[in-house]
Amino acid sequence: MDQPRYLLGLDVGGTKIAAVVADGPGDILAKIRRPTPAALGPDAIVAEMTDMLTEVAGAVEIGPLDAAALGVSFGGPYDPVRGVVRDIPNLPDWGGVPLLRLLSDALPGVALAIDNDANAAALAEWRFGAGQGAEHMLYLTMGTGIGGGIVSDGRLYRGLRNAGGEVGHTVLVPDGAECGCGHRGCLEAYASGPAIARRAIEKLEAGEGVEFADALRDAGIALLELKTESIVEAARDGVTFAMDHLADTAFYMGWGIANAVSILAPEVVVLGTVATAAGDMFMEPLRRRVVDMAMPGVGDATRVEPAGLGDLVGDYAAIALAVDALAP
Amino acid sequence: MDQPRYLLGLDVGGTKIAAVVADGPGDILAKIRRPTPAALGPDAIVAEMTDMLTEVAGAVEIGPLDAAALGVSFGGPYDPVRGVVRDIPNLPDWGGVPLLRLLSDALPGVALAIDNDANAAALAEWRFGAGQGAEHMLYLTMGTGIGGGIVSDGRLYRGLRNAGGEVGHTVLVPDGAECGCGHRGCLEAYASGPAIARRAIEKLEAGEGVEFADALRDAGIALLELKTESIVEAARDGVTFAMDHLADTAFYMGWGIANAVSILAPEVVVLGTVATAAGDMFMEPLRRRVVDMAMPGVGDATRVEPAGLGDLVGDYAAIALAVDALAP
Repeated sequence: MDQPRYLLGLDVGGTKIAAVVADGPGDILAKIRRPTPAALGPDAIVAEMTDMLTEVAGAVEIGPLDAAALGVSFGGPYDPVRGVVRDIPNLPDWGGVPLLRLLSDALPGVALAIDNDANAAALAEWRFGAGQGAEHMLYLTMGTGIGGGIVSDGRLYRGLRNAGGEVGHTVLVPDGAECGCGHRGCLEAYASGPAIARRAIEKLEAGEGVEFADALRDAGIALLELKTESIVEAARDGVTFAMDHLADTAFYMGWGIANAVSILAPEVVVLGTVATAAGDMFMEPLRRRVVDMAMPGVGDATRVEPAGLGDLVGDYAAIALAVDALAP
Repeated sequence: MDQPRYLLGLDVGGTKIAAVVADGPGDILAKIRRPTPAALGPDAIVAEMTDMLTEVAGAVEIGPLDAAALGVSFGGPYDPVRGVVRDIPNLPDWGGVPLLRLLSDALPGVALAIDNDANAAALAEWRFGAGQGAEHMLYLTMGTGIGGGIVSDGRLYRGLRNAGGEVGHTVLVPDGAECGCGHRGCLEAYASGPAIARRAIEKLEAGEGVEFADALRDAGIALLELKTESIVEAARDGVTFAMDHLADTAFYMGWGIANAVSILAPEVVVLGTVATAAGDMFMEPLRRRVVDMAMPGVGDATRVEPAGLGDLVGDYAAIALAVDALAP
């Protein structure tokens, strides 16, 4: 069992599942993707998963049972103590599903690790991406939500119920903007992808950024359909309104990160999604804010870096868990 | 070397040093105290320390070299990687002092652990106090500053440069009240002992709490000499102004704790000093605030408790480190 140890990975989301196979050091050798058969319920999804693993393992001429380990990055809240999925809105019927047992039964003898996608992505950036070698790392996405994961001494810091790392739900503005979590004024309500667009729309509706509003109208884009991607693109093109709006967003994001840095004193904070797309234009004001607001002596010692894995983060997230499954 | 293993502890502050001896399970058997000979510099303080250890060890009829371990809770920033004290204002000439080496040389063969007092107190509350048995615990003092320590899986979470746990320097109000750290709007600038008094004085000067101001005048207490202790006492006596002021303080403290809870998802948050003195009157509104502001599902699962060790926390802090020094 020594030379070619293959690792399998599953990246499970609400709309699609990816299956990957990697070699021992984690280089990804093959990948397939299929839509998530969400409506059919957990049994069908697990059957689909094992079918996909068989197909992708075939690319390196093994069966799935020949793999050393399987890592599953799950796009929803997962309880690693019980090995069970918690209730989630975007995957109906998954609440309470014993994913660990179902997959163990399907793949006897294959080491198995499952975690939520934020934790798995944190582990991936630490093992393969921008956080390599850091003793303490904080990873944050700026996608639909602001998810996070903490890696300390090479292990995930999970907290009670695997719920740690929710920097997106720290409150910056009591009685501020409504957040999807039901509270008000969370960082996520100011700096997630949808929140960035919403705040821009509010400003444009209030009469700011007339030129940008005109340009959108000329391009046939309705104000309410404005996406964060378009704002980032406009900022890259030098549109003042868009640049100012990203600097504004960097204020909130930098503030939230600064507070997390004072608490966690990470060596590096790795930021995905919007931060990666916007680049220095966003990262520079954000870094200044972290130094200005985090505990002196800590904020200026912490590096804040864009994520290193880009669109491949989900694949590496699953493989990082597979590597972990083999750890003693 | 099996039956009676004694543990030694030193609690080193800017004005006094305590030396204690405890049995293996951590019951404290004897204690002595002397003023810190701060002006004489580190060599004299280390000589004083070993002299005190000899005296306190004598109480159980051993020499200091017969002890299994020594724990040192140090009232200033300490770098556990290099074993060296960082620059601190209240202990002149200590910056760069290699405390670990000096004490190792003085006590060869005795296991040794040194840490700053906030981390040591966190470990003490986890091992002997209100955090016993918790997988993840956050400890916060509300004294001169708001110090903090994080215990996870039975070990201190230190972060880069041993600087983690600084919940007191998370920013709640950008451009808010000045903080001793040089920034503005930190939790510590609203809820530390001195900040609680300062905010009360500001309110009284602005004409709030006329009855309380009259009572202070009758008692011969100048407004600028008002201490947090007197406010807590007045609140216990049912004085409306004082009760409202503590509820106000619980708002800030609960907000800061809620943000830390969203990030760390601790099983329990243990609060020392003012929180312990004020009791339920302060703890109840604070707990409500944590539930209202922390990530749903986490805030309501986290217990927030007053510290269990009271005035003895410094003694147990040193002994908790001694226990740690013996851990494999």
